[in-house]
Amino acid sequence: MFYIIGLGLCDETDVSLRGLKAIKGSTRVYLEAYTSILMIEKEKLEAFYEKELILADRDLVETESDAILANADKEDVSLLVVGDPFGATTHTDIIIRARNLGIPTRVIHNASIMNAVGACGLQLYNFGQTVSLVFFTETWKPDSFYDRIKENADLGLHTLVLLDIKVKEQSEENLARGRKIYEPPRYMSIPQAVNQLIEIEESRQENILSPETTLAVALSRVGGGDENERIVAGTLAELAAHPTEAYGQPLHSLVIVGKRLHPLELEYAETFAINREKFQQVARDVYKCALLG
Amino acid sequence: MFYIIGLGLCDETDVSLRGLKAIKGSTRVYLEAYTSILMIEKEKLEAFYEKELILADRDLVETESDAILANADKEDVSLLVVGDPFGATTHTDIIIRARNLGIPTRVIHNASIMNAVGACGLQLYNFGQTVSLVFFTETWKPDSFYDRIKENADLGLHTLVLLDIKVKEQSEENLARGRKIYEPPRYMSIPQAVNQLIEIEESRQENILSPETTLAVALSRVGGGDENERIVAGTLAELAAHPTEAYGQPLHSLVIVGKRLHPLELEYAETFAINREKFQQVARDVYKCALLG
Repeated sequence: MFYIIGLGLCDETDVSLRGLKAIKGSTRVYLEAYTSILMIEKEKLEAFYEKELILADRDLVETESDAILANADKEDVSLLVVGDPFGATTHTDIIIRARNLGIPTRVIHNASIMNAVGACGLQLYNFGQTVSLVFFTETWKPDSFYDRIKENADLGLHTLVLLDIKVKEQSEENLARGRKIYEPPRYMSIPQAVNQLIEIEESRQENILSPETTLAVALSRVGGGDENERIVAGTLAELAAHPTEAYGQPLHSLVIVGKRLHPLELEYAETFAINREKFQQVARDVYKCALLG
Repeated sequence: MFYIIGLGLCDETDVSLRGLKAIKGSTRVYLEAYTSILMIEKEKLEAFYEKELILADRDLVETESDAILANADKEDVSLLVVGDPFGATTHTDIIIRARNLGIPTRVIHNASIMNAVGACGLQLYNFGQTVSLVFFTETWKPDSFYDRIKENADLGLHTLVLLDIKVKEQSEENLARGRKIYEPPRYMSIPQAVNQLIEIEESRQENILSPETTLAVALSRVGGGDENERIVAGTLAELAAHPTEAYGQPLHSLVIVGKRLHPLELEYAETFAINREKFQQVARDVYKCALLG
């Protein structure tokens, strides 16, 4: 059996009992490295599971999946991913490949940011499509996310924005010389993300995002308890000016609040506000949403 | 500490290790009864957790939450919910109430249909807002879900449709006589849901849903393995005509496939089709989406 097991959002104790049983019974256990490696330390997971973990980078999962799947028709093999296995396209690829090889597969689900985002108090029902925001460079500033946010905003819906990470990057010099030396991983911070959003608003000028009157909520390590979880709400300008450390450890996500904001959503979300009075004021004056009684 | 703990989607082994630890350490453990009671049997959970569970119906959670929260400032109390705690508004209510009472709270996340729906191969990124479909009666056929599906469809997005359940219903006679006798729980079936969708399309005539050319995917007990999980894809007409038993045990959910369907989504989803040739044909001719290679 080939298992793909979601590890959830925070640490080694977020795996389900079903998932842990599959890990314990597997002869080989892979850890998807390109999103997970620095969120949950490999050594900590190994000690906890009492299993050696094999790091699986993007190349291995996407293009050399037969190595992962070897013998999975005769013994159990597990691939561990942070969050839920269906956050990224690549995992449907490897399941299709397994099926084509006649290997039985089983997915063990877990929380991912796609549902745990509800922790900020905004109702999952009121979210539109999710977008990803990549690191801009001097010459490459892809802005299709802006059209998606606009589509959601036109309907009054919230948008979950997933922030880019860069793992196993090579410097131009190392790439040119063919040296497999990688830069340290980079995670987009909330202020960086907000600044990129504002930069595109300034060039597109379609009046979707406003530093002073668009409300947003930043989340990290949802479900990890007070020592890990951070949820911070405010206007875009407030979030951009807030100290990066205040957002906690990566991965970070951002929610752009839609105009259909409901008083019950406001009541919960405003408790995370940098400035509650300001948050309520923008909600009331711009979103036409006020706290009940 | 007051814990709200997501149990995941299938059985007693879907709880996380973090969640199990909180349950074991709690002096009182409530089981939210109005969505969960018949998905995971109380007795089975009690035996597994070695804890007595107190059933919490909607009244208790929504209007008498102080009884649940009693003493949670001095000892640990847990409320268990199927899926993730942020699927329903009611849980933000009880958290706000706890905070107002000065009780520390902690949410332990898990998979819910809101993210596990990815198991059908449709990308979570391509979903619009989620809708709920309630049981129609002769005189009450609320159709606001149709506007939401239309908004999603206009953008080419998929729609997750959550099907109604009725728990603790009273017959008119018992209600009139004030007898607290409840009808057996009812779960909307996939054919029933599809027929309701088509009924509203016929009255609204906005050409959003078509029995022959709208593709949809039905899901139940996602992540429960071959003995539980059912994923069935087809046109609305095919799904309506398919035997109810083929959809497995409740709860059921339905996805209306949007026109932005991507070939990689098709490749995965069509493996669940009642009639693969027909599914591919509609995808190609109506959705303009064909399998690669």
